[in-house]
Amino acid sequence: MKVTLAMGNGGEENLELIERIQKFFHNDYLQKAEDATPLDGIEKPVMTTDSFTISPLFFNGGDIGKLSIAGSCNDLAMMGGRPLFLTFGLIVEEGFELKMLDKILNSMAKELKINGAKVVAGDTKVVPKGSVDGVFINISAIGERQASLSQRNIEEGDVLLVSRDIATHGAAIFAAREGIELDNQIQSDCASLWPVIEELMENVDIKAARDATRGGVAAVLNEWARARGLTMEIDEESIPVSEPVKGICEILGFEPLVLANEGTFVAAVSSKEASRALEILKKHNPNAAIIGKVGTQYPKKAILKSPWGTKRFLDMPSGEILPRIC
Amino acid sequence: MKVTLAMGNGGEENLELIERIQKFFHNDYLQKAEDATPLDGIEKPVMTTDSFTISPLFFNGGDIGKLSIAGSCNDLAMMGGRPLFLTFGLIVEEGFELKMLDKILNSMAKELKINGAKVVAGDTKVVPKGSVDGVFINISAIGERQASLSQRNIEEGDVLLVSRDIATHGAAIFAAREGIELDNQIQSDCASLWPVIEELMENVDIKAARDATRGGVAAVLNEWARARGLTMEIDEESIPVSEPVKGICEILGFEPLVLANEGTFVAAVSSKEASRALEILKKHNPNAAIIGKVGTQYPKKAILKSPWGTKRFLDMPSGEILPRIC
Repeated sequence: MKVTLAMGNGGEENLELIERIQKFFHNDYLQKAEDATPLDGIEKPVMTTDSFTISPLFFNGGDIGKLSIAGSCNDLAMMGGRPLFLTFGLIVEEGFELKMLDKILNSMAKELKINGAKVVAGDTKVVPKGSVDGVFINISAIGERQASLSQRNIEEGDVLLVSRDIATHGAAIFAAREGIELDNQIQSDCASLWPVIEELMENVDIKAARDATRGGVAAVLNEWARARGLTMEIDEESIPVSEPVKGICEILGFEPLVLANEGTFVAAVSSKEASRALEILKKHNPNAAIIGKVGTQYPKKAILKSPWGTKRFLDMPSGEILPRIC
Repeated sequence: MKVTLAMGNGGEENLELIERIQKFFHNDYLQKAEDATPLDGIEKPVMTTDSFTISPLFFNGGDIGKLSIAGSCNDLAMMGGRPLFLTFGLIVEEGFELKMLDKILNSMAKELKINGAKVVAGDTKVVPKGSVDGVFINISAIGERQASLSQRNIEEGDVLLVSRDIATHGAAIFAAREGIELDNQIQSDCASLWPVIEELMENVDIKAARDATRGGVAAVLNEWARARGLTMEIDEESIPVSEPVKGICEILGFEPLVLANEGTFVAAVSSKEASRALEILKKHNPNAAIIGKVGTQYPKKAILKSPWGTKRFLDMPSGEILPRIC
């Protein structure tokens, strides 16, 4: 059965589609929803929004549904926010298979549970064939801040870590699109980060965290360097990259540092907390690593240090990196 | 100058596009935004989300930018919520004119002021030509509830009002698409309703309000009837419809009651408050009218009474009413 235009037009068939969707997200808040949904009070809210236009919709390691919930909740988690309430905006192309839509909605529901968050409002638009490519999803999310993680806290001497080996999401999507066959298929890192961030916050005085999505780790390091007028000094050899990802990067001529991740973050902690932070990160992924520290030599720059003592600037990525990666 | 794929990919050009967009929405919250934006505490939040896929993007009486902010804030207002914080998700087609984008953003900024609301987070995705038709916008909004307007408050004997003449948005979009030339061009009712709702709430014990968007007034009345197990009894002759809209409806064979509005609402008040409510509504639009009352004769139904005493059911709209109306 396919999605029809009539299902998106505010009438009887629209109510049926809404009911079909709502059963994936059942909760007490949705019961009270009319034009908008009354929620419980929030003392320290933190809010984010993200649209997802990824192609293909289903990929090794996830799909647009999982990606949309994980990605939005991750943005809250990076600010120390426990994910609470989410809204979704689905834009569906006429003729899209309802069975595929169910699969996407099911992935969303599963990922919500991992975050302990609830969908409290949704909107579904069906547009004529050709007006959109398949399904686009917008998620807005609001959470309660448990600690004030922020790039503003980053200081000289802080240690930088990554939570796992990098660039798998970008490499997986690339390989899928280009039809590259590998012995070890690369799986996207697509995952919710709230559980590991929560454990980190409870045990370590973590200063800042950022998930390395579009633009990859290079974008995070450059943004932090610019925001603080400091230098992000990275030991190139310490950056964890798996062999299959290295292979893809060589074929395509890309640096892993600019490829997108969807469940990998960079963290800044004071030097005395670094080994404890690494220990916790390694419990969640053995490839977590300390990758460098915060210096002052080249203000607003990120630099890569080679094992032979040479240095080069790691620039902010530019150009057409990869459209529809998320 | 046109939007390029490079502007949507997390790198240098992406930052430039973000800066271009942010200057329309400048505020203190955005200054503190990183992956997510810290907000002030909200005691009685109410939240909504809506995607806008309207075609054409610019129409008589508004554009997708004005529509998106007004439409989302209206959903909060209908629940008694003062609009506070909004997020937007822009999905832009590669090659879209930046000048047109500026025009849309400017309309958004103007409408935000009317609502006293602020954009606190945004996301912009650029997708390859053909993956989306022009620009789609998602808005999520959170407000603070000033009174508990809800369909749950509706009781037998309550009086039903509309805030102005109906069906102008649907008729205007129809006329524009079909290329129908009229002596009096129809202007969409697209407008923010918070100011009139606020005045109503301050002066009248208003029970429920709902803006009659997709599915029109017919959808609102049927939803209320079903939610309360009551009858919405409408005097057909009392429904305000302008002559040009009547003309369009005759040409196209539509009932004004099923056509979309974007700045028109139905309100339910106790009978003793009805004349006071009408007085306030008329200050904002002289075509506001009392259109009927709440009865019990046909549970879960809306009925239309003719001036000759005959009755017919006003059904929930169904079928392909009009895609991309909002």
